Amino acid sequence: MPVYLDNAATTKPCDEAVSALNRCLTTIYGNPSSLHIMGLDAEKEILAARRQIGDAIGTEYINIFFTSGATESNNLAIFGTVNANKRRGNKIITTDIEHQSVHSPLSYLEENGYDIVRIRTVDGQIDEDELIDAVDDRTILVSAMLVNNESGSIQPIGKVFRTLKRRYPQLITHCDAVQAFCKIPMRASALNADLISISAHKIHGVKGVGALYIKKGVRILPMIHGGGQESGLRPGTESVPLIAAFGEAVRIGSEKIDENYDHVSKLSSYAKAELQKLDDISINMFHEHSPYIMNFSVKGIRSEIMLHFLEEKGIFVSSGSACAKGKKSRVLEAFGIEDSAIDSAIRISFSKYNTMNDIDKLISGIKDGQGRLLRS
Amino acid sequence: MPVYLDNAATTKPCDEAVSALNRCLTTIYGNPSSLHIMGLDAEKEILAARRQIGDAIGTEYINIFFTSGATESNNLAIFGTVNANKRRGNKIITTDIEHQSVHSPLSYLEENGYDIVRIRTVDGQIDEDELIDAVDDRTILVSAMLVNNESGSIQPIGKVFRTLKRRYPQLITHCDAVQAFCKIPMRASALNADLISISAHKIHGVKGVGALYIKKGVRILPMIHGGGQESGLRPGTESVPLIAAFGEAVRIGSEKIDENYDHVSKLSSYAKAELQKLDDISINMFHEHSPYIMNFSVKGIRSEIMLHFLEEKGIFVSSGSACAKGKKSRVLEAFGIEDSAIDSAIRISFSKYNTMNDIDKLISGIKDGQGRLLRS
Repeated sequence: MPVYLDNAATTKPCDEAVSALNRCLTTIYGNPSSLHIMGLDAEKEILAARRQIGDAIGTEYINIFFTSGATESNNLAIFGTVNANKRRGNKIITTDIEHQSVHSPLSYLEENGYDIVRIRTVDGQIDEDELIDAVDDRTILVSAMLVNNESGSIQPIGKVFRTLKRRYPQLITHCDAVQAFCKIPMRASALNADLISISAHKIHGVKGVGALYIKKGVRILPMIHGGGQESGLRPGTESVPLIAAFGEAVRIGSEKIDENYDHVSKLSSYAKAELQKLDDISINMFHEHSPYIMNFSVKGIRSEIMLHFLEEKGIFVSSGSACAKGKKSRVLEAFGIEDSAIDSAIRISFSKYNTMNDIDKLISGIKDGQGRLLRS
Repeated sequence: MPVYLDNAATTKPCDEAVSALNRCLTTIYGNPSSLHIMGLDAEKEILAARRQIGDAIGTEYINIFFTSGATESNNLAIFGTVNANKRRGNKIITTDIEHQSVHSPLSYLEENGYDIVRIRTVDGQIDEDELIDAVDDRTILVSAMLVNNESGSIQPIGKVFRTLKRRYPQLITHCDAVQAFCKIPMRASALNADLISISAHKIHGVKGVGALYIKKGVRILPMIHGGGQESGLRPGTESVPLIAAFGEAVRIGSEKIDENYDHVSKLSSYAKAELQKLDDISINMFHEHSPYIMNFSVKGIRSEIMLHFLEEKGIFVSSGSACAKGKKSRVLEAFGIEDSAIDSAIRISFSKYNTMNDIDKLISGIKDGQGRLLRS
């Protein structure tokens, strides 16, 4: 059994998700757009999942729109807002710690004449005043994440968005909640977000499906055109098996959110305490953070060297965001972490399936690595 | 067991696809972008599928780009070409029998100032001369399908594209080959297409994944921005399970393409012969057509009435494209079929899993329907 501590990159699908998926491969395999009962049965699977996801964030099922994943959800939120608001303005506010799937579309817009303002973080938190002050009447969108994928830091999105929506009711607020959803308690209403991106495969669903919550009354335009699926906002035959699996993963995940949170908190606290007992470890963690993600640096050992050393022992960690694939972390830099610490940063990320024993193996692996790799 | 004759809408996943998919849920569940072996193992699954798909159309694996399905492939082909050729021109040629996922993006472009020319069909075939004459130096893209999804008619794409590419080497040619792939023999080189859209779930793969073939040297721009997946052309964590299943479905489908073609041809010929024995049936079929799709009209009985009558007997057919969901068929109209025949059109579509017995049940069901529904 691998010691899998890379759950922020992707998770193992839960049994309930696997079972729902297989049901939709073998019996409920109709096209939801078909007019006959095999189509209706498939449509029912989608509706059930939509309800499960709506319930999990305290909203009506009609506000949930399925996409191929969080990257598409983030792109749809951004380009969909931009295309629906071309006459209103061209300014967008974001932060410098966003995931690549928010960062890149905004950079693309910047190259095409949009005014993109990226707010800095101070001690791991986005500068609330700077963000609020940056918004003006020409601002069409604010996009900010709830839990940072590299550090686990939790951002005060609900509070900031509330202030912004009071001052600028027409402003669209978007939250990339991928690393928060089904991990820390999260309600659409409390977030004050018009748009929320979530993903299945980060919460024991299957890669290839995500969703965008769109608050009732908020209008964005589709990126993809075709049949009328997802109310015309996201055409294409729905991936019924992945959607059904997503629904089940969300049902299980939200039912046990507190239980899992407690379990992971214990793992996280234990890992932190044990890491702090070792020499030359700095924990890249800030005031408010999710227990699901921990980032630390092992002085003098480059991330990839440690990653591959641990891999040999069957321990799987990350050297940063999986999507960055070895590039130097723009996000850790934005958090004010020193270059040498970034070069030796290790991200571990937990799931409900991890055990105390996994942590013991990790600690022992790092200790061993320090002994061998520093000497060589 | 249902008599499932709606395989142009979607197919039942084959055992090989289901097995590959489950392998990627339970053991190969890493994120392909992760630097450790669990990431590499996932990456290998994608590479294997890419090779299987490349092999099936006679091209290198590097020319295959995964998407969330054919709707996205068609949109990416169109918008990707448009965005890469903004300076070159604004004219696009297509046909009036395209699938909604080609028709709608082009209508969107038309509303936004692009010059879209839709070529008519004559006796079920697009007017080759009209198409060729329509292209000029300002034309950036020609998009035409190989097998029509409602009628099964095969279009002379390879021939037309060859002429066009000789006259206009810079012109991008796109073929929606969804209903042809793994059903009728098809090579990228013989099609003379720069871009080819295909889908998994029409060939016993799973809904939620498709691909776009991009000829080496042809440059299009991404619609979605994020991590560097699919060479930056289609970012987002790859759906490894669906991609692996797609690869297997393609491997099996292309290995047995002739065998399946012969089997389905027999079913199709038998169905046609038996339908022609009935009164008041007109077959909406043209010179060259795929045996996988048959369209006919039952005089005096509206499509949906017959569809639901057959459904009661466990026989599943379509009243047109699944994506049109009951709307009057724009495509059958373009084929010159009379309004009354369109209103009573039934599409049956076969797979390797269908049997002669299925056809007998269908014929008996239609006969029964004519007896009961015409009287009422």
